[in-house]
Amino acid sequence: MANPPRARRTRTTAAQKDRVGVWLFGAMGGLATTVFAGARAIARGLAAPQGLVTATPLAEGLPLAPLEGLVFGGHEIRRSTPREAAREIHAANGSLPAPLLKAIDRDLVEYGRRIVDGTLVNAGRGIEKLVADGEAAKPLPLREAVARIQDDLRAFMRKERLTRCVCVNLCSTEPKLAPSPAHATLAAFERALDGDKRSLVRPSTLYAYAAASLDLPFVHFTPSDATLIPAVRQLFEQNGAPYAGRDGKTGETLVKSALAPLFKYRNLRVLSWQGYNMLGDRDGVVLDDEENKATKVESKDRVLAQILGYAPHSKVAIDYVPSLGDNKTAWDFIHFEGFLGYRMSLQFTWQGCDAVLAAPLVLDLLRLVELAQRRGERGAQAQLACFFKQPIGTDEQDLHVQWHRLVAWLTAARGAPTAP
Amino acid sequence: MANPPRARRTRTTAAQKDRVGVWLFGAMGGLATTVFAGARAIARGLAAPQGLVTATPLAEGLPLAPLEGLVFGGHEIRRSTPREAAREIHAANGSLPAPLLKAIDRDLVEYGRRIVDGTLVNAGRGIEKLVADGEAAKPLPLREAVARIQDDLRAFMRKERLTRCVCVNLCSTEPKLAPSPAHATLAAFERALDGDKRSLVRPSTLYAYAAASLDLPFVHFTPSDATLIPAVRQLFEQNGAPYAGRDGKTGETLVKSALAPLFKYRNLRVLSWQGYNMLGDRDGVVLDDEENKATKVESKDRVLAQILGYAPHSKVAIDYVPSLGDNKTAWDFIHFEGFLGYRMSLQFTWQGCDAVLAAPLVLDLLRLVELAQRRGERGAQAQLACFFKQPIGTDEQDLHVQWHRLVAWLTAARGAPTAP
Amino acid sequence: MANPPRARRTRTTAAQKDRVGVWLFGAMGGLATTVFAGARAIARGLAAPQGLVTATPLAEGLPLAPLEGLVFGGHEIRRSTPREAAREIHAANGSLPAPLLKAIDRDLVEYGRRIVDGTLVNAGRGIEKLVADGEAAKPLPLREAVARIQDDLRAFMRKERLTRCVCVNLCSTEPKLAPSPAHATLAAFERALDGDKRSLVRPSTLYAYAAASLDLPFVHFTPSDATLIPAVRQLFEQNGAPYAGRDGKTGETLVKSALAPLFKYRNLRVLSWQGYNMLGDRDGVVLDDEENKATKVESKDRVLAQILGYAPHSKVAIDYVPSLGDNKTAWDFIHFEGFLGYRMSLQFTWQGCDAVLAAPLVLDLLRLVELAQRRGERGAQAQLACFFKQPIGTDEQDLHVQWHRLVAWLTAARGAPTAP
Amino acid sequence: MANPPRARRTRTTAAQKDRVGVWLFGAMGGLATTVFAGARAIARGLAAPQGLVTATPLAEGLPLAPLEGLVFGGHEIRRSTPREAAREIHAANGSLPAPLLKAIDRDLVEYGRRIVDGTLVNAGRGIEKLVADGEAAKPLPLREAVARIQDDLRAFMRKERLTRCVCVNLCSTEPKLAPSPAHATLAAFERALDGDKRSLVRPSTLYAYAAASLDLPFVHFTPSDATLIPAVRQLFEQNGAPYAGRDGKTGETLVKSALAPLFKYRNLRVLSWQGYNMLGDRDGVVLDDEENKATKVESKDRVLAQILGYAPHSKVAIDYVPSLGDNKTAWDFIHFEGFLGYRMSLQFTWQGCDAVLAAPLVLDLLRLVELAQRRGERGAQAQLACFFKQPIGTDEQDLHVQWHRLVAWLTAARGAPTAP
Repeated sequence: MANPPRARRTRTTAAQKDRVGVWLFGAMGGLATTVFAGARAIARGLAAPQGLVTATPLAEGLPLAPLEGLVFGGHEIRRSTPREAAREIHAANGSLPAPLLKAIDRDLVEYGRRIVDGTLVNAGRGIEKLVADGEAAKPLPLREAVARIQDDLRAFMRKERLTRCVCVNLCSTEPKLAPSPAHATLAAFERALDGDKRSLVRPSTLYAYAAASLDLPFVHFTPSDATLIPAVRQLFEQNGAPYAGRDGKTGETLVKSALAPLFKYRNLRVLSWQGYNMLGDRDGVVLDDEENKATKVESKDRVLAQILGYAPHSKVAIDYVPSLGDNKTAWDFIHFEGFLGYRMSLQFTWQGCDAVLAAPLVLDLLRLVELAQRRGERGAQAQLACFFKQPIGTDEQDLHVQWHRLVAWLTAARGAPTAP
Repeated sequence: MANPPRARRTRTTAAQKDRVGVWLFGAMGGLATTVFAGARAIARGLAAPQGLVTATPLAEGLPLAPLEGLVFGGHEIRRSTPREAAREIHAANGSLPAPLLKAIDRDLVEYGRRIVDGTLVNAGRGIEKLVADGEAAKPLPLREAVARIQDDLRAFMRKERLTRCVCVNLCSTEPKLAPSPAHATLAAFERALDGDKRSLVRPSTLYAYAAASLDLPFVHFTPSDATLIPAVRQLFEQNGAPYAGRDGKTGETLVKSALAPLFKYRNLRVLSWQGYNMLGDRDGVVLDDEENKATKVESKDRVLAQILGYAPHSKVAIDYVPSLGDNKTAWDFIHFEGFLGYRMSLQFTWQGCDAVLAAPLVLDLLRLVELAQRRGERGAQAQLACFFKQPIGTDEQDLHVQWHRLVAWLTAARGAPTAP
Repeated sequence: MANPPRARRTRTTAAQKDRVGVWLFGAMGGLATTVFAGARAIARGLAAPQGLVTATPLAEGLPLAPLEGLVFGGHEIRRSTPREAAREIHAANGSLPAPLLKAIDRDLVEYGRRIVDGTLVNAGRGIEKLVADGEAAKPLPLREAVARIQDDLRAFMRKERLTRCVCVNLCSTEPKLAPSPAHATLAAFERALDGDKRSLVRPSTLYAYAAASLDLPFVHFTPSDATLIPAVRQLFEQNGAPYAGRDGKTGETLVKSALAPLFKYRNLRVLSWQGYNMLGDRDGVVLDDEENKATKVESKDRVLAQILGYAPHSKVAIDYVPSLGDNKTAWDFIHFEGFLGYRMSLQFTWQGCDAVLAAPLVLDLLRLVELAQRRGERGAQAQLACFFKQPIGTDEQDLHVQWHRLVAWLTAARGAPTAP
Repeated sequence: MANPPRARRTRTTAAQKDRVGVWLFGAMGGLATTVFAGARAIARGLAAPQGLVTATPLAEGLPLAPLEGLVFGGHEIRRSTPREAAREIHAANGSLPAPLLKAIDRDLVEYGRRIVDGTLVNAGRGIEKLVADGEAAKPLPLREAVARIQDDLRAFMRKERLTRCVCVNLCSTEPKLAPSPAHATLAAFERALDGDKRSLVRPSTLYAYAAASLDLPFVHFTPSDATLIPAVRQLFEQNGAPYAGRDGKTGETLVKSALAPLFKYRNLRVLSWQGYNMLGDRDGVVLDDEENKATKVESKDRVLAQILGYAPHSKVAIDYVPSLGDNKTAWDFIHFEGFLGYRMSLQFTWQGCDAVLAAPLVLDLLRLVELAQRRGERGAQAQLACFFKQPIGTDEQDLHVQWHRLVAWLTAARGAPTAP
């Protein structure tokens, strides 16, 4: 008579073992919503896992967290619901088709119950204007804000009976944060927190600090430079959780880092590489604010010099074009010189839906850092550089070199023992 | 009294050691002329070696034949002079500037003296129409034609006191040659030669056979499929000379083989990859003939399936647009599917001068096969795959993988002892 | 007591006066389905009349047939239903959104009841392969086929109590029809019909002949050259109905005819104008057949010489790219020469949904030929040239000249008395 | 005996009658140099008059000043010579070929003798940095500066025995000039000159004022808003000379004004029209200064609203890309909405050499304003709108409407009597 329960319990435990929490900072943004909806759609067999490297033969045999076991929650500063956010995406570009939304409607509602209020501490006007007047409650003192984030994370894990959880930063790009000695060491930073020095942090600094303090793996998917300041990285290394970042490589920069090596291989001198980017969604609104744009442009501009070994004349222009929605369109013009000084050109137009390109990378990354944690790796995960515009832990920008490093890591991980 | 002559002789010998013959089949075509003019311009310090891999730090320390020691000669079917050919290029696209032509005028004249009549055996209408009526003497029987080519090569080396010589096939693309059992083995092929079976060869078959018979390294830079038939390759392996081919990768295919891996890396499914190529020079005239076009299109169409692991809908269209001259312009459209089946696109326009892009590859290749021969390598040189659309000796089409193989070979070659 | 019925009857008559039949040959093709669905959506206030010239201030005050009074019927060779056809379009490119289809579902069903079997007489393999085996009944003798088409049209008008009806040819492009003396005069053609000379007609010849015989205005929207042969045009002139054609100008050619005048204005010599078109829908399948492609390419190739006054090197290539569906993508490259012979270029990429671009033109055209008939105009309506690639009744290809002619005609028509 | 001299004198008079002075403000800029070199090349029969409207059948029978009778002089602020300026152009983009420069070398030297120092009054940093330190002499008081310009013009005409002279403003784009009541009337402006109010003028204001004061026709070919202020225009009307302006329409805006009507004709709603322009010559250096860029961008941004009747989201970005030299490259992206709200796009890349495109317009314009003066026309010449980005005297921006107005004027001018 006792057996059935036990058997069931065993099964529960088995399923339990595969359940992994995913905490999204910026939980109802276009990308977070696409990540969640896509993960559920694939888990329910409604869509193929197109776009995921972790769904290719390369990942076969790896003990990755199954998509169907991911439990999502997160912080968000805007008043909305995942259902509303998903419908907005459907209306804007059709990337979340109506039948899919219908099929995962209950999942969206449940997800909404696991989303709590985010912090707006020193978020900057670009982000603050996303929040309707009066909605942004007066921010708490820094130490209280951190404590609340930690409590939110602990509550989520407890309520969902999770032993493992990955944090992902998907918040809108923040304004650049002026470097400060307070960022240099964990001790200095803690004193700044104690002193409630708000101008020394952005919301994502607190999120990352909280994740590090709880020993949770962390993916920094946006360009914000305030997130993984040295002090926070020190805390990750100290506590032992792996992290990866920064700024998902999804569009123009992806193509750039695939194409630039060609010019090196052929000893063709790049004279100018100009990029003109247009985007129209909430990201565009935020980037239309010059403060935030500066962070983004800097993030895109480092690739060429590293790959080519010299810095050609180069500029990345970004404009907000509302009618495009999330369908980013970028035009790049490459002027180069060959044999006997002859000048030639290559130009390309990239038309891609940003959230559609980014969402599978987020799923890949959270599965891979989670695996890295079980494999006992800590700190910056340089083998994940191919996913980022500004890879942390390596200077390598060549997409192909980055890729082969990932392949080597996956090959090593396959079969190697991991923590239970 | 005897010393000065001796000293001079020693110096001559030293310089002699660096002299390497380069025999170009198709010696006054746009590419051959650019190769020669460029090599001389660089040798005389009039131009930087932009475009040559063998002029980058990668090749430092390698005992490569110096450009200033290359002695050029070749076969040609058209009546012209290198000076005239060079002026034609200058007028068409300015890639050989007037001051450069003036500075190497004597070199051009000397080169002209080392060019002899090529063969037109079964060359096909597209090529035959390049030769004015009556100019094409009745072709010799195959055995005599081969003997004459061998004599031409031996005479060149003897007259120029060369001990080493590399052959390069730069003839216009020939019509496809129907496969035959006579191509399968050297013995069968020699019987065909004895039987004067002209329909079983093209001019480049005889050129390659002659090179192999004299143990000369060979670079097959065009798409012609008649050149390195199995029988000829057998003769190369048997005699010991290295060879490399086929079809220099200079434009649209170069970009394609650099970009296609991106889609694999990101698990983005390529639905369609359409390429539209326009070119206007003599190559265009020849390709305007459907027979010759078939050879070219086939050569361009193999890249995607090998890199992606599946064959997307794909077509490479080629049109003759006289006003473009040698400035090839190609437009490629890539339609692909990502997360949740969403469709996106990438398009690029390549505007490059074909001879300018190809000439440094020819110089790289001839120096590298010559080095390979001194290093004792024989047969197909697969490490040179990155230079070709249809690499012989490997199926690898991924430009980056090809490149890293070349780097590995160069690294191994550096410092390793070579034949004197 | 008698008044209410009378009043109602008057109102009915008033409404009746606004009812105009629209008979579509090719009634369930992508274009016809979009025309019908769009007309109903606009009539029901579900969509703005974007894309219709007859919905702009230019048409204000003109006694055009209101969209809400259009009654659609037609001939079709494939087995399907308008609902199914509409869903196919929705799935392929989303141009008919799901809520719209739901709102007009009953309209679609009703439309289906007014569609009858078309003829396949000498339609050619490209079109015949659209029809499943065995479905294509053995074609009737020509005279019987014509009689059946006439009966279908009369029955439609009788059943729907229509006094006015416009016919529109939207059938897939037919193979070219060899010119014949039997096409030259009405008398000769009637003898051919009597003699059942099937090879001298295509289905659209019979459709146009039937329309002309019943004095119905006719819009020839496709490139087929068999439709408005001289004999049929003679019958239209004789009976008095106006007609317009040929081949709706919707994409690449539209842009070409807008841009080419620029080069004339500036005395810039166009050296080459190359166009590469890709399309993926049923049109593409049909055009993939070389017979049908020839008709289309010829239709696109006449614009430049007329506008520029000379014929530059020019080619229009068309390829079938299934993944694009109805989203035609065209790349054009224009190479031109300016001051002191300097060469420059312009290139453009057009990405447009063909049915979406064509459908409003069909609605404009049928309203305008219907108005022309009431204004007593007969024969070729040259003022509608701006809608066509091969305008009948004029050689003018300059989009701007064409447009100003239409404006002049509309201005004249405004206020001028028309037939009741 | 007296006859031969008389005869000769008659002939001299006849030739004299055809001699017309052309005074270029900015006489050694890239454009002015190309104008001069091109005019001489055509006059000497070395080049066809490609690019000139006044060399097409449209201008046949018009009593235009012949190119071979144009006598060039001008003001310039930089130290250089026309020969040097011409060689710079040759080296940068080859638009002035070496043989041409050789053939007109004496003409260049003579032209140099007719160039005098320009004024730098309040020219702004962008322009001042073109002049090496110390070279810019301290500007004269305004009245003296004007008097010197007038003297220069009178001396040129006297020395060259010219009775007619056209002035053309080709100076680099000046910074915007803040509007002032002193610009509103001639009287107010003269008081400002008397009061030496330098901040109220730019160099081109003084040039235009001087031309108007001497009753010389004037072409304002640049975007500067300081040139034809109301006060100056009043002086032109008063004295009777015709003028035309502003900002030659040569590249992206030319294409824009040819394409935009298409969207109006088809009732397609333009959602966004983004333009990204790159240029690398001296213009680019000047525009790289934000002050001057503002003038240019404003000039480019007015076209769409006038043509379409509404203002879509639109931006014109301009970047300095040195490697391009004078080969301007512009990419435009047009996002538009059609039937049933469906969104589509058109993009184009324009690659044109700016001076090559502009020079023939300058020659056309100076011949046409000179003709207008002889025909007794005064003030703004609106029929020349098709040549300008910001036509003075009309709001019309539609290239086609502009063109047909020019054609109507030319037609009227042909045969009509003109002043001797």
